[in-house]
Amino acid sequence: MTEAPITETPLQQARREFRDELVEAGLLIPTGIDGLYGRAGAFEAIIDGIDHAVRRAGATAHGTDAQVVRFPPVYPRESFEKTDYIASFPNLTGAISTFTGDNPAHRALLTDRAAGLPWDGHLAAAGTMLVSAACHPTYASLTGTVPDTGVLRDVYGYCFRHEPAIDPARMQAFRMHEFVFVGRPEAAAAHRDAWVPRGLQVLADLQLAATDVPANDPFFGRAGRILAVNQRDENLKTELVVRLYGDLDDGTAVVSSNCHQDHFGENFGIHTADGAVAHSACVGFGMERIALALLRTHGIGTGGWPTAIRATLGL
Amino acid sequence: MTEAPITETPLQQARREFRDELVEAGLLIPTGIDGLYGRAGAFEAIIDGIDHAVRRAGATAHGTDAQVVRFPPVYPRESFEKTDYIASFPNLTGAISTFTGDNPAHRALLTDRAAGLPWDGHLAAAGTMLVSAACHPTYASLTGTVPDTGVLRDVYGYCFRHEPAIDPARMQAFRMHEFVFVGRPEAAAAHRDAWVPRGLQVLADLQLAATDVPANDPFFGRAGRILAVNQRDENLKTELVVRLYGDLDDGTAVVSSNCHQDHFGENFGIHTADGAVAHSACVGFGMERIALALLRTHGIGTGGWPTAIRATLGL
Repeated sequence: MTEAPITETPLQQARREFRDELVEAGLLIPTGIDGLYGRAGAFEAIIDGIDHAVRRAGATAHGTDAQVVRFPPVYPRESFEKTDYIASFPNLTGAISTFTGDNPAHRALLTDRAAGLPWDGHLAAAGTMLVSAACHPTYASLTGTVPDTGVLRDVYGYCFRHEPAIDPARMQAFRMHEFVFVGRPEAAAAHRDAWVPRGLQVLADLQLAATDVPANDPFFGRAGRILAVNQRDENLKTELVVRLYGDLDDGTAVVSSNCHQDHFGENFGIHTADGAVAHSACVGFGMERIALALLRTHGIGTGGWPTAIRATLGL
Repeated sequence: MTEAPITETPLQQARREFRDELVEAGLLIPTGIDGLYGRAGAFEAIIDGIDHAVRRAGATAHGTDAQVVRFPPVYPRESFEKTDYIASFPNLTGAISTFTGDNPAHRALLTDRAAGLPWDGHLAAAGTMLVSAACHPTYASLTGTVPDTGVLRDVYGYCFRHEPAIDPARMQAFRMHEFVFVGRPEAAAAHRDAWVPRGLQVLADLQLAATDVPANDPFFGRAGRILAVNQRDENLKTELVVRLYGDLDDGTAVVSSNCHQDHFGENFGIHTADGAVAHSACVGFGMERIALALLRTHGIGTGGWPTAIRATLGL
């Protein structure tokens, strides 16, 4: 049980108490850093169940058309650069560095470390970055011309965002399962639109009360405010939101359906058969957030969940 | 198909050709960096099959005693420090940094970036590290006194090691499934010993010709050579090795069974009921390496694999 800070809003209290409840139930294992947790087997079983439901929704929508691709949690800096993430979300970024020196340089590192000094200055960029969104590593492999019907991919993996928070729904490391489309502009827009009701259906099958709302990404800084307004005005991002903390906030986005227009197509050199820049769209299921919504809505013990939900999850 | 360098040893050629074969078969997706690949659905099905076999071996050995715990691919720097990994394997390490500045600092970063200059100098340590071995994040949660029978954990997750290589068996990001024991010294030694024949049986069931050999970790530098000799002399590490490239090398370690003696117990403050420092041991199954051994031994197409192997993998 963490101690309540002296000044804590009702929302902060609700988030802290939910996190404490998850830790006490043994579902999440604290690591000493906000937003980074180990997961117990029982939590992973819920994640696997959600994956089961998401895959089924994918099969219903796309048959076997979606190409399954999995990427590790790190990918090349060169691809990261093309996403422009460092321009829009620098504060969430995870850059990787390593030691590339010789014996004397290593001794210098260890001397600083023994003196209690930071030793990061002895490291060099490793050429890699942590994956910020599950779909990012996929675009580099599509450089060139995509088929006339476009490319459809099923991607799933760990994402990293540096935003330490007490709210268990804001983790620094979490999984996202996405269906990504790259192709003609109208087909990309249709992919995004179609996945809003499909996503709502996945959540309804889990008896989660979700609503779809226009949204924007948390672009950094003053210039970012303009990007956010544009994204919302052009209706490019829809979030499916579940209220984890009642009326204390506007709810937590557990699914997001997005159209990137020509952003990735332009930067990664992806074209359609007619030579135009390809558009892309993706729907992302936030696996940990859906698990938390289930635990918040139906109770901490999955044994007491309605039979229909357990069946949907394959539990 | 990658081009053959002018001076290439037969071993280098064999490794490059195997990688090219995996890429051409669509099993691995190149990212532009050696040792970093996307995985096709067919490759992931093999990994899941190996996981199935490893879990079954765990259940045969330990019943339901092993506590299932999963950690994300990043964990706290504070825990990383206690592993002493930066002293022994600095060159394999992955440290994470992020941007923590304000608007003007971000503009300065973007100005450097636009000029084609490195922008890492604008970042700050994020307090986290990439996981180097699947068991590392588990020790911090065991600080204190473990039960008299010890603690047994089933951990599985992505590991990062910065060692770019053409050999597909040396990936920078790969998965390791471990059974970790922490408790009395003799029980830790017994855990390590018992998992050598169990590991060999898992590989035999997959019709892989494996042998167990005394081994040492690749400790860095001159001081590291002494640590390596000690580890081997004290018989603390046994690797199960499969020959992927015939007689061109001594084979590839696909499983490793290790006793850490009091290393983690001492640094993480873990004690047995009698007040002594706990010992630890682990067996780690290198999931990608076992998959590659299967593909190398039985052929690139899983459809042609012997029925018994397909059954063992649940394919």
